[in-house]
Amino acid sequence: MSLLVVGSLAFDSVETPARTVENALGGSATFFSYAASFFTQPRVVGVVGEDFPDEHRQLLTARKIDLSGVVTEKGGRTFRWKGRYHQDMNTRDTLEVHLNVLGTFNPKLPERFRDSTHVFLANSSPGVQARVLEQVRKPKMVLADTMDLWINTQRDELLTLLPRLDGLLLNDSEAQLLTGEKNLVRAGHAVRRLGPKFVIIKKGEHGAMLFTGDGVFVVPAFPTEDVVDPTGAGDSFAGGLLGALESDATTPGQGHLRRAMAYGTVVASFTVEDFSLDRLKRLDRREIDDRLERYRKMLSF
Amino acid sequence: MSLLVVGSLAFDSVETPARTVENALGGSATFFSYAASFFTQPRVVGVVGEDFPDEHRQLLTARKIDLSGVVTEKGGRTFRWKGRYHQDMNTRDTLEVHLNVLGTFNPKLPERFRDSTHVFLANSSPGVQARVLEQVRKPKMVLADTMDLWINTQRDELLTLLPRLDGLLLNDSEAQLLTGEKNLVRAGHAVRRLGPKFVIIKKGEHGAMLFTGDGVFVVPAFPTEDVVDPTGAGDSFAGGLLGALESDATTPGQGHLRRAMAYGTVVASFTVEDFSLDRLKRLDRREIDDRLERYRKMLSF
Repeated sequence: MSLLVVGSLAFDSVETPARTVENALGGSATFFSYAASFFTQPRVVGVVGEDFPDEHRQLLTARKIDLSGVVTEKGGRTFRWKGRYHQDMNTRDTLEVHLNVLGTFNPKLPERFRDSTHVFLANSSPGVQARVLEQVRKPKMVLADTMDLWINTQRDELLTLLPRLDGLLLNDSEAQLLTGEKNLVRAGHAVRRLGPKFVIIKKGEHGAMLFTGDGVFVVPAFPTEDVVDPTGAGDSFAGGLLGALESDATTPGQGHLRRAMAYGTVVASFTVEDFSLDRLKRLDRREIDDRLERYRKMLSF
Repeated sequence: MSLLVVGSLAFDSVETPARTVENALGGSATFFSYAASFFTQPRVVGVVGEDFPDEHRQLLTARKIDLSGVVTEKGGRTFRWKGRYHQDMNTRDTLEVHLNVLGTFNPKLPERFRDSTHVFLANSSPGVQARVLEQVRKPKMVLADTMDLWINTQRDELLTLLPRLDGLLLNDSEAQLLTGEKNLVRAGHAVRRLGPKFVIIKKGEHGAMLFTGDGVFVVPAFPTEDVVDPTGAGDSFAGGLLGALESDATTPGQGHLRRAMAYGTVVASFTVEDFSLDRLKRLDRREIDDRLERYRKMLSF
């Protein structure tokens, strides 16, 4: 078994009501792979510029994350994102996006990554996601993320991709946009009818919903008092989820997916407790499992 | 053991994106007592006008709800509320409020209601809620609802009431307004420090959070595709919760409250599936327990 993520490595500048950080390590592949590293040894495909420092690489490789699919573009600059969170910490405005080397990136899998069994197609155009998928020989589990931009501008490409996925991850407003259904339960079922075997609707601080052929499963977010920076929560959730799935030897089934969702929820709850990867850097597997047990008790009656 | 609710009986006119009803039976005491009637035989104190029809009374008394504390004011008209739900069905505008007989109502408990063990003080001014409480001899469990209006206009009276309560029920924005805390976990703990033994923050379609001395417990709403009319969901939740608590012979504790929250969630999920009491009228205890089991499975991993 082996877990692959294709996504971004970035410099994030984040303003929250309490504090601001500049050019912190971010990106979907970064958060995903670090979160997954508590469960397995993820492989990353992505692109950075010459400005991407060695210390960031070392931080990831120290977690046994395989960066051999990360290309450094000569003379290029790394993708940059700048955003500002509102007072409620659940909504944000994007202030700046500099795609830089990501703008022309055409992901190419190293030969030895082509046997990956579990694949996360982080948010990217559905065309790029499809081209990645073609390079994987025989994936067991493909999960993709998407966003409103692609629903609005590349709907046909997205609709072509959906039947090729095991799971699609999207947020509540994106599910409504994609299906025209306001009710999230209906929206989730409607997305599933577009092709993916299961659908996960992310609701930020309100948790997530899983839709499978067996029905709906709801998970609240783990309640935390210390929401410092929500950036990366969704990708950490996906990393915890797919990492748990990949490392779990039991037969896949809805129970399997539910436990993985709980792991994703718990890992994401740590991510938001500090900026960038700062909380995950202080985290170990025991703390994850302890919180998972608290979460399980919290949900039982 | 005996359960008392002091609250409103009303005519509700409701506009939703799909449909409209006029002058349907509503009111906090109505929804609360009907929801609680699946667990126990609630007592109601309230006021109506001469326009309140016998068929509404009969609907409630057929459920063994004791209406002997409901006063009919001569020449008076029953409280009327008119509201319009937005497309998301989770937010609404109040279009009209006619307090009518409710405007001057000073609740007086029939002598034989004064031994009630479980009391729900439905939304009303904290002064009125306190005067009701003084008439109950030795309550075991007092739960109160409140709203932004009282937080803004009668904060001192509310702060005086809070230490006398076992539980306070309020919604997310009200908890933020009362405490100045944006983070709901902090807000819930802060409300509890104002006096009540436990606090429940209602989040509409996103469920509820319980705060006790033992920590936080989160419950998602039961996911339903058929949200026809959310009116009465909060009071049905309270009715299911307090009805389950009153009828449960086990020692009170956090587990007890959690199970009661789950019952409240499930009963409320039925209420929103039709206008007024229409769904609850078609409901029986077996259906409640079946959905509770589905809900329990949905939350386990």
